[in-house]
Amino acid sequence: MHVSDTPTLRSIPIGIHATGTREEFDSMGTVSVQADRYWGAQTERSLHHFNIGTDKMPAQVYHAYGFVKKACALVNAAAGRLPEWKRDAIVQAADEAIAGELDMHFPLYVWQTGSGTQSNMNVNEVLSNRAIQLLGGTLGSQHPVGPNDDVNMGQSSNDTFPTAMHVATVLAIDDQLIPAVSRLIGVIERKADEWMTVVKIGRTHLEDAVPLTVGQEWHGWAGQLRACLEDVKATRAGLYELAVGGTAVGTGLNAPKGFSTDVASRIAELTGKPFVTAPNKFAAQGSLDAMVRASAGLRGLAVALMKIANDMRWLASGPRCGLGELTLPANEPGSSIMPGKVNPTQCEAMVMIAIQVLGNDSAVAVAGSQGNFELNAMRPVIINNVLHSIRILADGCDRFREFSVEGTQIVPGKIGQYVEGSVMLVTALSPVIGYQNAAHIAEKAIADGTTLKEAALASGLVDEALFDKTIRPIEMVGHGLAGA
Amino acid sequence: MHVSDTPTLRSIPIGIHATGTREEFDSMGTVSVQADRYWGAQTERSLHHFNIGTDKMPAQVYHAYGFVKKACALVNAAAGRLPEWKRDAIVQAADEAIAGELDMHFPLYVWQTGSGTQSNMNVNEVLSNRAIQLLGGTLGSQHPVGPNDDVNMGQSSNDTFPTAMHVATVLAIDDQLIPAVSRLIGVIERKADEWMTVVKIGRTHLEDAVPLTVGQEWHGWAGQLRACLEDVKATRAGLYELAVGGTAVGTGLNAPKGFSTDVASRIAELTGKPFVTAPNKFAAQGSLDAMVRASAGLRGLAVALMKIANDMRWLASGPRCGLGELTLPANEPGSSIMPGKVNPTQCEAMVMIAIQVLGNDSAVAVAGSQGNFELNAMRPVIINNVLHSIRILADGCDRFREFSVEGTQIVPGKIGQYVEGSVMLVTALSPVIGYQNAAHIAEKAIADGTTLKEAALASGLVDEALFDKTIRPIEMVGHGLAGA
Amino acid sequence: MHVSDTPTLRSIPIGIHATGTREEFDSMGTVSVQADRYWGAQTERSLHHFNIGTDKMPAQVYHAYGFVKKACALVNAAAGRLPEWKRDAIVQAADEAIAGELDMHFPLYVWQTGSGTQSNMNVNEVLSNRAIQLLGGTLGSQHPVGPNDDVNMGQSSNDTFPTAMHVATVLAIDDQLIPAVSRLIGVIERKADEWMTVVKIGRTHLEDAVPLTVGQEWHGWAGQLRACLEDVKATRAGLYELAVGGTAVGTGLNAPKGFSTDVASRIAELTGKPFVTAPNKFAAQGSLDAMVRASAGLRGLAVALMKIANDMRWLASGPRCGLGELTLPANEPGSSIMPGKVNPTQCEAMVMIAIQVLGNDSAVAVAGSQGNFELNAMRPVIINNVLHSIRILADGCDRFREFSVEGTQIVPGKIGQYVEGSVMLVTALSPVIGYQNAAHIAEKAIADGTTLKEAALASGLVDEALFDKTIRPIEMVGHGLAGA
Amino acid sequence: MHVSDTPTLRSIPIGIHATGTREEFDSMGTVSVQADRYWGAQTERSLHHFNIGTDKMPAQVYHAYGFVKKACALVNAAAGRLPEWKRDAIVQAADEAIAGELDMHFPLYVWQTGSGTQSNMNVNEVLSNRAIQLLGGTLGSQHPVGPNDDVNMGQSSNDTFPTAMHVATVLAIDDQLIPAVSRLIGVIERKADEWMTVVKIGRTHLEDAVPLTVGQEWHGWAGQLRACLEDVKATRAGLYELAVGGTAVGTGLNAPKGFSTDVASRIAELTGKPFVTAPNKFAAQGSLDAMVRASAGLRGLAVALMKIANDMRWLASGPRCGLGELTLPANEPGSSIMPGKVNPTQCEAMVMIAIQVLGNDSAVAVAGSQGNFELNAMRPVIINNVLHSIRILADGCDRFREFSVEGTQIVPGKIGQYVEGSVMLVTALSPVIGYQNAAHIAEKAIADGTTLKEAALASGLVDEALFDKTIRPIEMVGHGLAGA
Repeated sequence: MHVSDTPTLRSIPIGIHATGTREEFDSMGTVSVQADRYWGAQTERSLHHFNIGTDKMPAQVYHAYGFVKKACALVNAAAGRLPEWKRDAIVQAADEAIAGELDMHFPLYVWQTGSGTQSNMNVNEVLSNRAIQLLGGTLGSQHPVGPNDDVNMGQSSNDTFPTAMHVATVLAIDDQLIPAVSRLIGVIERKADEWMTVVKIGRTHLEDAVPLTVGQEWHGWAGQLRACLEDVKATRAGLYELAVGGTAVGTGLNAPKGFSTDVASRIAELTGKPFVTAPNKFAAQGSLDAMVRASAGLRGLAVALMKIANDMRWLASGPRCGLGELTLPANEPGSSIMPGKVNPTQCEAMVMIAIQVLGNDSAVAVAGSQGNFELNAMRPVIINNVLHSIRILADGCDRFREFSVEGTQIVPGKIGQYVEGSVMLVTALSPVIGYQNAAHIAEKAIADGTTLKEAALASGLVDEALFDKTIRPIEMVGHGLAGA
Repeated sequence: MHVSDTPTLRSIPIGIHATGTREEFDSMGTVSVQADRYWGAQTERSLHHFNIGTDKMPAQVYHAYGFVKKACALVNAAAGRLPEWKRDAIVQAADEAIAGELDMHFPLYVWQTGSGTQSNMNVNEVLSNRAIQLLGGTLGSQHPVGPNDDVNMGQSSNDTFPTAMHVATVLAIDDQLIPAVSRLIGVIERKADEWMTVVKIGRTHLEDAVPLTVGQEWHGWAGQLRACLEDVKATRAGLYELAVGGTAVGTGLNAPKGFSTDVASRIAELTGKPFVTAPNKFAAQGSLDAMVRASAGLRGLAVALMKIANDMRWLASGPRCGLGELTLPANEPGSSIMPGKVNPTQCEAMVMIAIQVLGNDSAVAVAGSQGNFELNAMRPVIINNVLHSIRILADGCDRFREFSVEGTQIVPGKIGQYVEGSVMLVTALSPVIGYQNAAHIAEKAIADGTTLKEAALASGLVDEALFDKTIRPIEMVGHGLAGA
Repeated sequence: MHVSDTPTLRSIPIGIHATGTREEFDSMGTVSVQADRYWGAQTERSLHHFNIGTDKMPAQVYHAYGFVKKACALVNAAAGRLPEWKRDAIVQAADEAIAGELDMHFPLYVWQTGSGTQSNMNVNEVLSNRAIQLLGGTLGSQHPVGPNDDVNMGQSSNDTFPTAMHVATVLAIDDQLIPAVSRLIGVIERKADEWMTVVKIGRTHLEDAVPLTVGQEWHGWAGQLRACLEDVKATRAGLYELAVGGTAVGTGLNAPKGFSTDVASRIAELTGKPFVTAPNKFAAQGSLDAMVRASAGLRGLAVALMKIANDMRWLASGPRCGLGELTLPANEPGSSIMPGKVNPTQCEAMVMIAIQVLGNDSAVAVAGSQGNFELNAMRPVIINNVLHSIRILADGCDRFREFSVEGTQIVPGKIGQYVEGSVMLVTALSPVIGYQNAAHIAEKAIADGTTLKEAALASGLVDEALFDKTIRPIEMVGHGLAGA
Repeated sequence: MHVSDTPTLRSIPIGIHATGTREEFDSMGTVSVQADRYWGAQTERSLHHFNIGTDKMPAQVYHAYGFVKKACALVNAAAGRLPEWKRDAIVQAADEAIAGELDMHFPLYVWQTGSGTQSNMNVNEVLSNRAIQLLGGTLGSQHPVGPNDDVNMGQSSNDTFPTAMHVATVLAIDDQLIPAVSRLIGVIERKADEWMTVVKIGRTHLEDAVPLTVGQEWHGWAGQLRACLEDVKATRAGLYELAVGGTAVGTGLNAPKGFSTDVASRIAELTGKPFVTAPNKFAAQGSLDAMVRASAGLRGLAVALMKIANDMRWLASGPRCGLGELTLPANEPGSSIMPGKVNPTQCEAMVMIAIQVLGNDSAVAVAGSQGNFELNAMRPVIINNVLHSIRILADGCDRFREFSVEGTQIVPGKIGQYVEGSVMLVTALSPVIGYQNAAHIAEKAIADGTTLKEAALASGLVDEALFDKTIRPIEMVGHGLAGA
């Protein structure tokens, strides 16, 4: 094409109306690709060589890559390295990638080159061909917009792929996870407030303990989630630092001065997130430590959710032979053989999600340790696991909230009955008559199957007036959440 | 329908020509489902309540369930509990499920009830409706073939789901994993035999050591894989034991005497695998220990593959600044910025797969520990991880073999040069002049940058004749694989 | 010393009566060591350079190494490579190491060279000096018995350390773990048999299910343990294969023909275990796959024990506000603040042990993947974790059995009350009146808080005679353990 | 004793001059304890019932508990609940515990009650008896200072044990880990600065890439460590929140108003760390999420250290058949069979430590998920793993620095030779002649075994002047650490 007059951007909808195959080329030669796809030779080679399982590089990575390519094109053009008409074509194609409109043209597997080069080249090839199409060129010609020389200008997979990983992860945390967890916290706190004065028996070591209120117990769960969510948010600090501008090994070879800072600023502007350039590109490309930290945040959240979901299903166990303090919504028949059975299925799903997140996180940590020299070549397995964890945590929190927590009810009769029956209320007598005396009363009540009061009076250490004054469950639950 | 005349099985191709929705019911009421799907109310409820991420219960679970349902129908009919015409309809539907022809009608998520009940009901509903269709009945009527009373006759999810898990896992091991790993071993051993006399330097602690042959090194890898594959095969012993016949809690309530043995026999016959009934149904349903063991086998294989893939990529590192003993096939350009770069991408994919399998296995182990009483309600997360591991290991081995191992070449010049240059050959002098003397010679050669021979002669402890007789690399590699 | 007349073995008790320090040397020079210790220069260097934490290489490794050194000395002497008087001295010293009498002379840390060379040299130095002492020589002189040339004759750390690992692990499994787990199984089965006809409610998803007997539930636990113990035993197959005879890289350099087979036979004879030489020394030294497999067996056992300990503590929860079906022995006051509280402390310890074993196993698997070429240099971390897991599992099983399981009692009143109250017995009506009808009865009973019978009769689908004939808990528990 | 005249504190050195046994009692009765130990009945019961392995509760937990008990005594006395003379005795005993002078009196195992009650009681009993001794009372009498009523006044294990865990962890991070990691960073940065202009070849995917400087590579490592250390420091935020004042279940029963705030302030004052009371005691006692987060920080550090230690040992591999760019100090002979061999043993130890930390962390995460209701009863396994990780990381960093990093040297000849030989310098031609042309030049040089320059000139696309101007390694390494 190499024409002297500037090509103009045409208005052509996404899509290639062609059948059969098209020839594409790279430095190794030509390859046939399906004619209605934008990708080129390297994508096709990867599809062929890495046909492994069904795990595909998540679409979110490509959306994030759209921001990276757009920002680079803008910066390259602003510095006069890329003509404006090329910039405009690349930017339009990148915007389409960001919007998810090119998703079907990003078919690669997770199990590919460890640097993510093949996915970077997939993006380069697709944006190149889409730009060529918009400019009236010939698909597969790499002209007037080349995948390496134009779309990838000043870049390497080694710096752009971890950049896209960070961008994708921040967006997933912000758009998926934080809202879903916040909604769940909101519902738990609303119900906690509602039940703030309902006295119930406490349980430690699974054994009867002294009372607290249902609201305090629920606020305990909310408090866990709040702290874990804060930690997830805190992990974004590392993710905000972007590797782009380090190019192949961190030195920035082939990228112009200021490129890293400029591109990071542009990405920040385009995404509305406080991305900055990583101050140490050798650390940023040789490691994926910020991703490992992000995964640890997700793992922490999973740990808390597992505890909470377990508590809820135990408290709802029964209806006749369990703890029976809560009733969970009955969303479906519980058993194919036992009629009328209702199970805590949302809690079970949440526990399984939590376990999966622990497994994913363990893979991320091992992968994070396996870098060598100027590159950690375990990137695809890390980004896939992190985005997987975010997705199932977010969706899981939403379903758990919507179909279980919101409809959970307390069973006041059962709750009250436990408080009355427990002998652990004896603890309140301990400061009055001493620990050992109190212990003997409790042991006697349990051994004889009497009430605590009967045993206390029989001990001769306490009279009825003292007992009634001291053993008042509602007085034993303190005030609020902060303890004494 | 309860007509006295026997309904006949019609020849109706799979598929429902209908649009809009159809009413389906279960014990909780009616639900609208997409009219062109076979599933019923409980599947629809699960789809609605568990819309979490993109992880779907693997199709292989439903194929395996086809065997279970078919075997149960045959046994129920043989015992006169199910009319032959019902049996025939269920069997045809089950055969279609086994063949994967009903896959699109099994849409449920992994994150669902922990017992897998919803997937069992999905199967029951689909086979029921397909049987109804084949018998000319009305879809959604549950007549003349009901999902619970007929397709699930004598069964519970609690015993059939783990049965389907075992069947699916054995089939995946046998059909996917064993052939793929065996093919890989075959290629490694073929190349090992070819290079059995090519002497190379050994490396321990990454440091130069005494020589061995390239073939010995490759046979070391093959030996690892053979042992790990044997272990994978051995894990099938536990998987051959089936829970079906235990029904809801292991007692076999609602299943007739002999059901467990008969169904296991039928499944063995239908699959050609030595399945038997589990002797202890309470262990079989309360735990998933056999699945945990199977996952450990996969994990062991992953550990070996990770070592092997790492060795290969290190030996091929370079081409000019690495070890450079091997050349791997160049399947694709390696870098978007560094022209002409070729990377060990198949090795990297294999390492990432291995790491994923470690993560999956760690999730399986935790899930395996979380059973309670008569049920381990972590089944979906376990079967999904185990089948995932099998799939990526199998495909990964095939691609690794096809696109990397088969085309790997040795670089004789480099290999020979290392052997000549190494000072660790001094070890052969140790029995002659003693360890300490030999050590001083080696240290001197390294410090002075001389050859070993120069340092040895300079020491005065060895003359040239002795040196030449003793330091003969080809004499230092022993014979075969078994050491001295 | 190099005297022509044969030195004679003197009867000298273990111990060095000296104060201050003694000079020892190795190829790098001389080093001062504490005069009353047998170790030499390399041990001292390691102590100095690896002063990390408090984890010491387990004594069992040195006991196992005693067998290795003894066997090598016997084989070397039988082949005429080692004079009989040297053999006798080494054998006596090795016997003392086997008996644990030299433990204080093996002070090294786990965190040392990854091959275990420093521990091998520690053994070589201690046996050398002890042999020198027995022969009347000068400690530290390396004469007449040298650590490298005599005690280590025909050996390398690379082949002997994994040999000692295998021997130590087999002995620990056989001597510690199998007896302890077997004892636990025995007690569980005895109690299971005792309670084989006590009907109790089953629980799936933590929810009320159909009945089984207490004995069936306990036999479920025993069945899990039996299967896991079989798997632990099966992992010994890989451990029986010994690397010794491969020397530095698997080729057997510097070891005479037949050495590997002869030494393995001797070790088998000395230990009474079926050790054999590993057929593929390159796999045996380049990997630690057999150790990874052994760890997986321990992990499987931990998974089962965690489930069982959890079941027990949940069934014993209460006494008034939990499930309360079991009473565990009260071994200690449970709370520093709540008088009279008794907690399931042995169960908690067992759960924590299981979690530790999972963590240990996960370290072992990662370490197993990190071998390179002819050596996996992660040996110390692997053997330490495996022996740690065995020890805490064995001791944990003994204490759990002795102080909790043996004294566990059932609470017949509570158990009976649950069976009577449950509505899930409706399942037995399902084959009579259909699943959907049965479901509606159960749902109504739960909603109205009536008994199952009341709801069943009110439905009009069942009369009292039918109900009483069908709903008989004792008839619902089947026969034995194998289900229907 | 209950005398009206105030007992006075005597000056009695630590230690009990007695032989045989002494009777101690608790609510369950009397128990004999070794007469020369301060502990009481509950400690003795625990020793007997939990004799499992060799893992002891770390002494640091008891030192931390000293601060807790001292602070509580001060607060209780200030509020008039504890006489001053009792306070003084308890404070002195607590100070002795803090100083480690009572360590031998804290003998309990890690595997004990999951709440840590037995260790809390161990502290209560020891401080009680020591206070009694100081006040002239009778050991074992629990008078005038009782373990429960005085030393444990206003406290529960449920709130004080996690408090001690947090205090112990913060102190270990501050006193052990941060200094050791900082020292390591310091040395790495010093050497990095020294080598900031030494050009070396970069490696990505283990394959030759474009150049950087040795200093940049080392600063990459330092950058990783700096970020990970910041993350470790950040985890202290959660640890600063203390549970004390929540007592048994978080409500603060039996503790007076203001107790939680006052005690936290006192602990802050005594330790000099910014401890505060946890705002949500139900979260603080029902979970150990802050410990899980702390462990994640340690895990992140381990991941970075593993990468760095691996890089160092690979760069030092050889000396003749490896990469050979670095020389590590030779601290010990490397092999028992190969004379003169030197191995990267400190690097191996560090890798093994990192793997152990990953395993420990994985145990911590699982344990963190296993809380129930008002208590996570997995405390001992968590604190033991976290303190273990801190200890081996800290010591490991010190030894690694002292015995390996500080003495590491570069091998300029080898480093220069790689730069000259590499063909990846072609990348600098890419912006000039295009990626595809550059790729063909590189491929040709590799295929023909020529220099890059020869292949470039042969291509006709570049003349010598252009080549020499463009391919200047020192110009290709950019400036500093921030990339382009």
